[in-house]
Amino acid sequence: MIIVMSQNATKEQIENVEKALTDLGFKTHPIVGDVKTVIGAIGDKRHLNTNYISTMPGVENIVPIMKPYKLAGKELQKNPTIVQVGDVKIGGTEVVVMAGPCAIENLETYLETAEKVKQAGAKILRGGAFKPRTSPYAFQGLEEDGLKIMAAARETTGLKLVTEVVDTRDVELVASYTDIIQIGARNMQNFRLLKEVGMYQKPVLLKRGVAATIEEWLMAAEYIISEGNPNVILCERGIRTYETATRNTIDMSAIPVIKELSHLPIILDPSHAAGTWKYVNALSKGAIATGADGLIIEVHSSPDAALCDGPQSLLPSKFEQLMKELAPVAEAVGRTL
Amino acid sequence: MIIVMSQNATKEQIENVEKALTDLGFKTHPIVGDVKTVIGAIGDKRHLNTNYISTMPGVENIVPIMKPYKLAGKELQKNPTIVQVGDVKIGGTEVVVMAGPCAIENLETYLETAEKVKQAGAKILRGGAFKPRTSPYAFQGLEEDGLKIMAAARETTGLKLVTEVVDTRDVELVASYTDIIQIGARNMQNFRLLKEVGMYQKPVLLKRGVAATIEEWLMAAEYIISEGNPNVILCERGIRTYETATRNTIDMSAIPVIKELSHLPIILDPSHAAGTWKYVNALSKGAIATGADGLIIEVHSSPDAALCDGPQSLLPSKFEQLMKELAPVAEAVGRTL
Amino acid sequence: MIIVMSQNATKEQIENVEKALTDLGFKTHPIVGDVKTVIGAIGDKRHLNTNYISTMPGVENIVPIMKPYKLAGKELQKNPTIVQVGDVKIGGTEVVVMAGPCAIENLETYLETAEKVKQAGAKILRGGAFKPRTSPYAFQGLEEDGLKIMAAARETTGLKLVTEVVDTRDVELVASYTDIIQIGARNMQNFRLLKEVGMYQKPVLLKRGVAATIEEWLMAAEYIISEGNPNVILCERGIRTYETATRNTIDMSAIPVIKELSHLPIILDPSHAAGTWKYVNALSKGAIATGADGLIIEVHSSPDAALCDGPQSLLPSKFEQLMKELAPVAEAVGRTL
Amino acid sequence: MIIVMSQNATKEQIENVEKALTDLGFKTHPIVGDVKTVIGAIGDKRHLNTNYISTMPGVENIVPIMKPYKLAGKELQKNPTIVQVGDVKIGGTEVVVMAGPCAIENLETYLETAEKVKQAGAKILRGGAFKPRTSPYAFQGLEEDGLKIMAAARETTGLKLVTEVVDTRDVELVASYTDIIQIGARNMQNFRLLKEVGMYQKPVLLKRGVAATIEEWLMAAEYIISEGNPNVILCERGIRTYETATRNTIDMSAIPVIKELSHLPIILDPSHAAGTWKYVNALSKGAIATGADGLIIEVHSSPDAALCDGPQSLLPSKFEQLMKELAPVAEAVGRTL
Repeated sequence: MIIVMSQNATKEQIENVEKALTDLGFKTHPIVGDVKTVIGAIGDKRHLNTNYISTMPGVENIVPIMKPYKLAGKELQKNPTIVQVGDVKIGGTEVVVMAGPCAIENLETYLETAEKVKQAGAKILRGGAFKPRTSPYAFQGLEEDGLKIMAAARETTGLKLVTEVVDTRDVELVASYTDIIQIGARNMQNFRLLKEVGMYQKPVLLKRGVAATIEEWLMAAEYIISEGNPNVILCERGIRTYETATRNTIDMSAIPVIKELSHLPIILDPSHAAGTWKYVNALSKGAIATGADGLIIEVHSSPDAALCDGPQSLLPSKFEQLMKELAPVAEAVGRTL
Repeated sequence: MIIVMSQNATKEQIENVEKALTDLGFKTHPIVGDVKTVIGAIGDKRHLNTNYISTMPGVENIVPIMKPYKLAGKELQKNPTIVQVGDVKIGGTEVVVMAGPCAIENLETYLETAEKVKQAGAKILRGGAFKPRTSPYAFQGLEEDGLKIMAAARETTGLKLVTEVVDTRDVELVASYTDIIQIGARNMQNFRLLKEVGMYQKPVLLKRGVAATIEEWLMAAEYIISEGNPNVILCERGIRTYETATRNTIDMSAIPVIKELSHLPIILDPSHAAGTWKYVNALSKGAIATGADGLIIEVHSSPDAALCDGPQSLLPSKFEQLMKELAPVAEAVGRTL
Repeated sequence: MIIVMSQNATKEQIENVEKALTDLGFKTHPIVGDVKTVIGAIGDKRHLNTNYISTMPGVENIVPIMKPYKLAGKELQKNPTIVQVGDVKIGGTEVVVMAGPCAIENLETYLETAEKVKQAGAKILRGGAFKPRTSPYAFQGLEEDGLKIMAAARETTGLKLVTEVVDTRDVELVASYTDIIQIGARNMQNFRLLKEVGMYQKPVLLKRGVAATIEEWLMAAEYIISEGNPNVILCERGIRTYETATRNTIDMSAIPVIKELSHLPIILDPSHAAGTWKYVNALSKGAIATGADGLIIEVHSSPDAALCDGPQSLLPSKFEQLMKELAPVAEAVGRTL
Repeated sequence: MIIVMSQNATKEQIENVEKALTDLGFKTHPIVGDVKTVIGAIGDKRHLNTNYISTMPGVENIVPIMKPYKLAGKELQKNPTIVQVGDVKIGGTEVVVMAGPCAIENLETYLETAEKVKQAGAKILRGGAFKPRTSPYAFQGLEEDGLKIMAAARETTGLKLVTEVVDTRDVELVASYTDIIQIGARNMQNFRLLKEVGMYQKPVLLKRGVAATIEEWLMAAEYIISEGNPNVILCERGIRTYETATRNTIDMSAIPVIKELSHLPIILDPSHAAGTWKYVNALSKGAIATGADGLIIEVHSSPDAALCDGPQSLLPSKFEQLMKELAPVAEAVGRTL
């Protein structure tokens, strides 16, 4: 890291900082400029607490040179991670589409939607049994009964399952039913929950927090991987900005940025980002062309009766149409659907 | 609520929407404008799922008229809530200052800081036993040992305690030690945790999420209150914006906005907002003059040895100076310190 | 518009608001709810100053129903506008690519780049003669000499020209040289400049301000169109968010949103959004698949000698490669390149 | 500056960067770390174009060490600038209040408001003759007739004047009438306009752009000062964030940040930040306690008839009350009003 000393730093202050760095095990290289002095500190001390250096007299600021994540980045692993979910590979040549309703409401409706998304070409079935809702008065999910319905739909359709867990106390239960455990945007920095899912080998779909930087997102992945679970799939779902024309602003640049910084696969959730089904088609095509490894899309056979997020759900017929339009886009960028 | 029909909505579409509203129990009042029709829907249906209306053909958008929160707002309670923590009243005439280190490191240092913040006039002692940290490699807190140190400091100084809980599994334990349970910014929408602390009568310090709207913040309070715990203290701690000169941007306007919308007390955390001790003095004075009911400030007897957030901690001497400067500001706005 | 009265509004206050509305020429429809009263005000009064209504006693807030723009929206024109620049059509089936360096430095380099972008398939040549720079010490452009170089390059290559104007005093001059007048992001709300370019019939490339809402952007277009110039091309170039991994966050959703709200064509500027050439390829493909009508891309034959924005400029060879990769993407969404 | 080489940079790439830096006149100091090499480049080259270095093969990024501004920062001037407007001093011990309506509508109303703000203790009279309005259909100001009315009010009351200029072509005219020239938020990066007002010695009130960083704001001041006009007063007026409870989010931290980085005085505009008069009182007191050198407040004798920004204007009686409440706050922080 680089320590920038303020313009008025005294010789003694500079020496004190050098001494403190040496005590921590760094080798130091002071560079005396015309106006300011900076001190290069050599050594990989990501596990050390070095931030007190910034409080020492005469220090203006500290510039980290190393990325704070190790396992989620490309330093130790250059090749892309391919997360295997049964026979489905996420992060390979094939673009993988996950689809289904926001919340599970009953077996019949769920099976109907499941059959239709399968026919259209989805490989993974989504559905919420534990729902984090902004209002305490909104439908909170069917909990284990919902998981049972999901399992039944897997039985019938052969689709793999992805569902969210929102409480450390439920991880074991959810893991026993699902094929992919989802960590929602609101829990991206629920570090206890991250550690808990890190203790399983089940793939984890890690949604980006609505105001998380890409670095914080990769640090959240680092929590999971450092507990022993390397099967992390990143999911961009829109970030919070001042623009209100869409519910959130989808950060399409996150795709090439993640591809540069990390070996983990990244998929997009256009439904939550847009907040309305109307933009899902355009954004899905854009995501694939930009390089996403997959999509997760809300589909509901009767959005007007959905207990959650109806406005952003596609009708099965519109989803089928989307899948048809996606195929040539995937092909245009050298991938299959 | 008001349903705005699109310019091209047909007569039949308008009738369908009216029928759907009637079926939900609303009384409807269509207003036929020169360009568009809007439908007024009368009835308090905050507990109903009405968002599917927005997916009906011809609907442009829905404008809610009622606030989504009830218990946290002023509809049912006009008078300010005063949260009683032993003999300390939060939300009354007195401005209450909470102070102490970010994390508890050991008994000796903690007691030293505790004594000093008491002498300077703090009424409540802060300290972290369970720390949510961005990096899995950073110090995560002493857990129950930390709580025991806090209890010892309460014994010695008579100060009340505030500390954070980060896992539903720890709520009972934390509640058994602390006087105020803190919900951190990253957990503001950890709804399970909110429900759990709502089952106790212990006061809850609810920090605003770093990208939460004021409405979402009040909805988080609603979660706690609706479980039966009315003792919620709101805490503004800076929001995420594009500006990088401070770690977060303190939203000072949140003080008068909360005073207008809610009966709950609101305090400020200038230390986390600024991310550096250098701005804590100015922002603390500003917060009191703007109308805050209190402050929570990081103080550490040796910030350079702090295992967490050293850069933003005040030395006890600077905290003492701040308390002296705050007194006349409090007085200038008709309050005591 | 809808006037929402506060819960405590008196009967007299409601009547006063109704009277004020009637005086302004509105027809009023009060709706008395269980908790609040709302008043529907019928009539298109976009040209009237009605905001004082919101200051009247008892008024909680005002909800506009009509869009504030008329000419830029779809109310009066449903079909897409196709902006004709000589024989190039922007907004039709063909995706139009504009390319060239940020600033014009000298004839030789500029011609070299111009020839190469032409060979690769660009239809319009960009280049800056008047540069808005954050620092007063940075290169500010060659001014009229730069325009002359551009004209020479048009002569040689047959490409059409787009260049920025930054001062009302230069509009006539710039218009006399260029084929498309660019309004940069920093001047999107320089209303005098908007009016000035509205007085010509030259096509205007209107970049979105770095923190402008889509509504404000369309209002800026309204300024130009209302002066008599309907030839507006919108250009999304990234918005300011908290994320620092890219210079700005490209708002890809703006494409389907604009297609829904407006008849104007929209193109994307991935170079300025990303701030680095590394992400330009991915974002360009994404933009076309999402539905953009074109792209504007920085290309420089020797980015390392560029006086402006070198880091985000593509080498001609990389631009050629990009154009080859864009063609199948355009085709996949039913367009040509 | 510091050049960070990527982990895979070759020896040759590192040497090439060193050579390029030497050619530009820097002295270089490479620091070879365990993982990466960084190169310190010594020399103050703020006037040089160095950004192409970042495009050289093997370069990961560049970390500037020097601030990009010189004249607006504290490097060359440590003592606070006190801007003298006749006998009014801005930036000294006295807190200076500027007040008046958003737009000038007619002589009678304007004089009435002017007299009242004077009686309440304002020292400077605000008023808009050239108004930048989001909508082309909104009142755009009385232009020179407005300036004449302002001059008449100065004659009568003895108050100094502040008014905005929005076009380079009007600077001479506006400067001939007013005592302080205002650059509005939308024109903070209208560099031509900044240069133009830099050619006069009239004090300039430079509002922060709604999405400008503090660094960009100081660079805008640098434009003015570098043309020869050192009399710059900074004005914080709220920044654009995701929060919609207020029109903009007032960045109160900007006060201590500016006091640390610059010698220029800073005032606050709570009226535009909040967008409603209801929060102006609280925010004004907060601003003074935080350390602002002054305030600019909208006051209108009949807000309900205002042609602009009525909702955020205080009635003269409320302004008088505010001034009374501000006095003890100013005193509490060692200042006078």
